Amino acid sequence: MTESKNTCDIDRLKNVTAAIGDSYLNLGGINHLNEPNLPARREVANLVKRLSAIVFPGFYEEITGNKERMETHLLTQCSNLVELLSNLIHKSLKHDCNEGFKCVRADGDCWSGATEIGYRLLEQIPAIRETLYKDIEAAYNGDPAATNYYEVVLSYPSVQAILVHRLAHVLAGENVPFIPRMMSEYIHEKTGVDIHPGATIGPGFFIDHGTGVVIGSTSVIGKNVKLYQHVTLGALSLSNVELIRKKNRKRHPTVEDDVTIYAGATILGGRTTLGKGSIIGGNVWLTKSVPPETSVTFDSPYLIFKNKGKSEKHVIDYQI
Amino acid sequence: MTESKNTCDIDRLKNVTAAIGDSYLNLGGINHLNEPNLPARREVANLVKRLSAIVFPGFYEEITGNKERMETHLLTQCSNLVELLSNLIHKSLKHDCNEGFKCVRADGDCWSGATEIGYRLLEQIPAIRETLYKDIEAAYNGDPAATNYYEVVLSYPSVQAILVHRLAHVLAGENVPFIPRMMSEYIHEKTGVDIHPGATIGPGFFIDHGTGVVIGSTSVIGKNVKLYQHVTLGALSLSNVELIRKKNRKRHPTVEDDVTIYAGATILGGRTTLGKGSIIGGNVWLTKSVPPETSVTFDSPYLIFKNKGKSEKHVIDYQI
Amino acid sequence: MTESKNTCDIDRLKNVTAAIGDSYLNLGGINHLNEPNLPARREVANLVKRLSAIVFPGFYEEITGNKERMETHLLTQCSNLVELLSNLIHKSLKHDCNEGFKCVRADGDCWSGATEIGYRLLEQIPAIRETLYKDIEAAYNGDPAATNYYEVVLSYPSVQAILVHRLAHVLAGENVPFIPRMMSEYIHEKTGVDIHPGATIGPGFFIDHGTGVVIGSTSVIGKNVKLYQHVTLGALSLSNVELIRKKNRKRHPTVEDDVTIYAGATILGGRTTLGKGSIIGGNVWLTKSVPPETSVTFDSPYLIFKNKGKSEKHVIDYQI
Repeated sequence: MTESKNTCDIDRLKNVTAAIGDSYLNLGGINHLNEPNLPARREVANLVKRLSAIVFPGFYEEITGNKERMETHLLTQCSNLVELLSNLIHKSLKHDCNEGFKCVRADGDCWSGATEIGYRLLEQIPAIRETLYKDIEAAYNGDPAATNYYEVVLSYPSVQAILVHRLAHVLAGENVPFIPRMMSEYIHEKTGVDIHPGATIGPGFFIDHGTGVVIGSTSVIGKNVKLYQHVTLGALSLSNVELIRKKNRKRHPTVEDDVTIYAGATILGGRTTLGKGSIIGGNVWLTKSVPPETSVTFDSPYLIFKNKGKSEKHVIDYQI
Repeated sequence: MTESKNTCDIDRLKNVTAAIGDSYLNLGGINHLNEPNLPARREVANLVKRLSAIVFPGFYEEITGNKERMETHLLTQCSNLVELLSNLIHKSLKHDCNEGFKCVRADGDCWSGATEIGYRLLEQIPAIRETLYKDIEAAYNGDPAATNYYEVVLSYPSVQAILVHRLAHVLAGENVPFIPRMMSEYIHEKTGVDIHPGATIGPGFFIDHGTGVVIGSTSVIGKNVKLYQHVTLGALSLSNVELIRKKNRKRHPTVEDDVTIYAGATILGGRTTLGKGSIIGGNVWLTKSVPPETSVTFDSPYLIFKNKGKSEKHVIDYQI
Repeated sequence: MTESKNTCDIDRLKNVTAAIGDSYLNLGGINHLNEPNLPARREVANLVKRLSAIVFPGFYEEITGNKERMETHLLTQCSNLVELLSNLIHKSLKHDCNEGFKCVRADGDCWSGATEIGYRLLEQIPAIRETLYKDIEAAYNGDPAATNYYEVVLSYPSVQAILVHRLAHVLAGENVPFIPRMMSEYIHEKTGVDIHPGATIGPGFFIDHGTGVVIGSTSVIGKNVKLYQHVTLGALSLSNVELIRKKNRKRHPTVEDDVTIYAGATILGGRTTLGKGSIIGGNVWLTKSVPPETSVTFDSPYLIFKNKGKSEKHVIDYQI
């Protein structure tokens, strides 16, 4: 159906190529042609998919119920995953070594360091699955539209986001560069939930709907916390970014156990603590701590109802 | 380029595999190895893509204009779709039967029930196309940046979201488990628009930009309704989730014909009705009904402009 | 594992096919079977991926560091890209010509017009890379959680969104139909950032987190502007869409150099200008201009803290 006409103007093509090639040479920092390769976005996507398949067997791919074949399959999966993890972690470590950053390994052997971290992540999976079980339970108990646990695993963005976070958080704890943030951005793309891999999150965590949620890198979240869409756990405004980066102080909130934060609320600052059992109302903007068992809402602003020139004031009823 | 060093430590691998295998056995509910397979996420993605291709021919794939070849192509597509639908619906029904839930079919024959539902969905497509035509018209009439209908189909997330919703809503009406919510979550991932398949939505529906929109399962929306990004049609806070789940009362709003809801507005509660032709302003938080032809805004809160120590109060002009 | 039962009911299949076929014939505007093919969504996704790979070599795919092989590789990439661009642009131009719209080319030769535009886009890449370098610098300087430039390129949605915008904006400037909006929607799906290709954006642009950002088609943004998630640069409410479309007046804001806009702020209207260096607080709703170096916040609304029947009023501290 498409006309196939010659588009080749070899001189122009060569000029374009030369100009782009020059641009690669002149502009440091946004290409790494002469440096060890970094993990590519596609490879990290592949890693997340394979890890997800092993954490939730049968949800991402068909699987046999036969015990022996399942065991063989699992061994193959684990073996492949160790290799993939070693490869990607090694790339990340080596890149940073070459850039003059300190290698994670005291002996400077990036490769065996990478393999070791790969194994350690896989060894965490049973514990991560236990925590995720509580996350799924929390989702089921928190949303009357959920009909059973299977549906929660199959179709709740919260489960995907927290699954990837719990894995990325392990790698962040091992000081692996690049990969944890690439994992979190991979799932941010899918779910609209942006959790920095540095954040510490307890079990029984549920985000309903999820789109637009932001959880900063030094946030600390307790057990059985529930968020709705568009909630931000952020930092106060930044006067000196370079200094903050170096000091890496806690600059995002602490959320204690059993807290609920409704849609659109913004909680800012490293010294801001939401006390156990507190409830934060929709769209609230908070930069100070809240005592335990306290609810916070806007001081009832009025709504104006206008109809054919007539205007009425109505108090907002937050009902939380 | 990559150093290929041996990552295999067979004993450690076997230990990891055994630990993960044990975790599968010990933790019910988040794996289904010994149960009939559920539809996998990938299969549902494939289903949505094929259904979209048949609803909007030529937009998702190249197609020949030749009438006869088109007919043959369409017959093949339909035949494949019936098979795919039967397969996936069958998995969902059978899974629930095995779990002790009631089968959709009185005769308990999940397979022919599944095929029947598959056909019924395809038989709905001409009617769905008519409704979608009105949705596209509404998008074109609602956004001056739209240059023609083709552009709307090709690049408006609203069209994708409502297309998938109208298909998923048919399956939800047939009480198919899992698949409707997996379809809605598939398109939520893509568009940021989260419409529960249970929601009832009239023709001429348009969501501009879309990211962050949430429409709850018992929402009822009339004709020619227009939403902007971040609008929530939600439930009031939940005291007893299990009870609410069992009763399944209407707990999300009713939006009558010709209503416009601007970005960031939150409308909550099953008894909240937005009357015909009403206009809800940006960021408004509403838990009560609004009479027809009424506009609702915040009671003009002030803005503070600060400049070199000087501070001025300005009334917000919502201009709706 | 799946029972394979016959789902084929040939008469019913034929009826379904005929009904859908009729629906194609009866309903204009949402199919284009008898018209030249438009670019398909998949093709545009492919275009964006290939362009991204050439702009950021080694980030989207592995690449050899060897200079000569790199040059050959680049020549092949450019040559393929010219062909792909010619093809897609040609489809778009031809479609519009057939619909009676004016061809971009005075001589009406869509094909060589398409090729010419393809080359011109590639010729812009070195300049675009220079601008993107400043965008990356801005991201690094604007977020203390960023550890280096590589991480910014690999995992910041802002970089993806502005990369695609800068490419789509060139094609929009060449009056190419369909493709620019399809590109912007492709990356909106991934990042949650919705920038209309018509918008003019200066260098050093950074959007933190990004989900829910909307930037309208006639927005004009200066140098070193920083936005947070959920910021809207939108139009005031529309009384006559068709008239607005024809006149295509500026209806979105102007944002001058060095402006920061915090999460959730909504700025509306074509005559609204945010003066150089101004700071717009979170959730602010603005429809009027702001002088240079001015900060804007809500007139401190109070929050209500409730605890065991006791109620306290707290002033909100925006701290910007």
